[in-house]
Amino acid sequence: MSPNSRAAIGVFDSGVGGLTVFKALAERLPHERMVYLGDTARVPYGTKSPEVVTRYSLGCARELLQHELKALVVACNTASALALDALEAQLPVPVVGVIAPGAAAAAAATKSRRVAVIATPATIASGAYQRALHEARADLEVRAKACPLFVPLAEEGWTQGDVPRLVAREYLGQGFVDGADTLVLGCTHYPLLRDIIAEAVGPKVTLVDSAHATAEHVAGLLEKRGLLAPVGNAPERHFLVTDTPARFVEIAGRFLGQPIAGAQQVDLKLA
Amino acid sequence: MSPNSRAAIGVFDSGVGGLTVFKALAERLPHERMVYLGDTARVPYGTKSPEVVTRYSLGCARELLQHELKALVVACNTASALALDALEAQLPVPVVGVIAPGAAAAAAATKSRRVAVIATPATIASGAYQRALHEARADLEVRAKACPLFVPLAEEGWTQGDVPRLVAREYLGQGFVDGADTLVLGCTHYPLLRDIIAEAVGPKVTLVDSAHATAEHVAGLLEKRGLLAPVGNAPERHFLVTDTPARFVEIAGRFLGQPIAGAQQVDLKLA
Repeated sequence: MSPNSRAAIGVFDSGVGGLTVFKALAERLPHERMVYLGDTARVPYGTKSPEVVTRYSLGCARELLQHELKALVVACNTASALALDALEAQLPVPVVGVIAPGAAAAAAATKSRRVAVIATPATIASGAYQRALHEARADLEVRAKACPLFVPLAEEGWTQGDVPRLVAREYLGQGFVDGADTLVLGCTHYPLLRDIIAEAVGPKVTLVDSAHATAEHVAGLLEKRGLLAPVGNAPERHFLVTDTPARFVEIAGRFLGQPIAGAQQVDLKLA
Repeated sequence: MSPNSRAAIGVFDSGVGGLTVFKALAERLPHERMVYLGDTARVPYGTKSPEVVTRYSLGCARELLQHELKALVVACNTASALALDALEAQLPVPVVGVIAPGAAAAAAATKSRRVAVIATPATIASGAYQRALHEARADLEVRAKACPLFVPLAEEGWTQGDVPRLVAREYLGQGFVDGADTLVLGCTHYPLLRDIIAEAVGPKVTLVDSAHATAEHVAGLLEKRGLLAPVGNAPERHFLVTDTPARFVEIAGRFLGQPIAGAQQVDLKLA
């Protein structure tokens, strides 16, 4: 396969959360052909082991390679934290994760040099954000916390009201962000809970998510390699899922702000 | 394979929840050899499609058949609701789900003939409890509700305090159980939230879970077929998981009330 400018950008996530990244990519790169794969039959990744997350991520990537790709975006923080090295080693196209762009954005935003990160248990346990933040800026003080209930709350659409407010207070109260002026939303589901999280940490803390920073990074990468789609290229958008499509199609509309025509179920051979 | 009385009882669940059933079986049938499989690499089942839950359930059953089995217990309400027919059709040993025993126990317990059921979205959508309750007793009035956040709350150990109390009130308040005197805990995780659920529905409602009713049913089945293990049979207990064992082993101790020696990771070929 020789990548060319009309090839597609492949994007995968454990389920629907990566659509926040897909949306930012589609806005930043409106002429690109894009294929999204949501591994809805095996969601979530954030409570599973590095070994299993790596196996699933390679399966998703191989499925997406059936389409002609010029780049692969890992739109899942857990997969970016645990499987990026394996994906880079095994794939014939450039691979972009969401952690380095998100960490760079946070390092640029902080004035107090204190940055807080919230993410899934697997992402936090990997230390990937802590490393990426220190690589972006060596003098940062980083505090990190796993917030496992935020994913099911976002998936169930409980993004407003007393329950998510109380959960956010449990996770983020008691001085967790004390002194930090920047909070990284280190899971693609968390932007759906942005209002509740902002309320829990207070107005002095800037929330950073990886979606826009990742889209910027992909745009720069494609431009540098002469792979940007020509203006007027038909920007086809194609959605693949591993479980039956109905629930994904319904939720995708909520994430993208507009309905999608449908999604195709694929069967990943790699368990 | 010809089942004999020294063969094992196989038990599977999407993860750790089925250990509540395993514990009841071990207490009721202390001389039996038992093998438990938790599909921790693909948990949860309760938010997935009938097609995927059936495929995963058949994979679990086939793995357990590698051990010499005399019966298979589907210790997962979602799998019992969606995959029992397929399992019965394809397996060479008797298959027992948790829904019929739980429904029979609830039908026996109610005086008002009004029964409420809470379970995962997949179980409720299947209508399996509604059908089983009406089969157990035709004149019951049944109300059913999906409570998807109870599983992540139980998995995270948030079984006491303000958050689960508020979630329970959201699901079970506003007259959901009004008039019902019996509430079926239609998911093997829910017994961990028993106190909170009891508080939300009030002291007039009897909570029924399937674990003991299922253990009774299995004991009766084995006795009828002359398959009870002889007294003094070494009651080996063996645990299999599809993700790495560490987290399972930790949580299993909490579910069983005593630590387990370990669990073996198996690789299900059927994705």
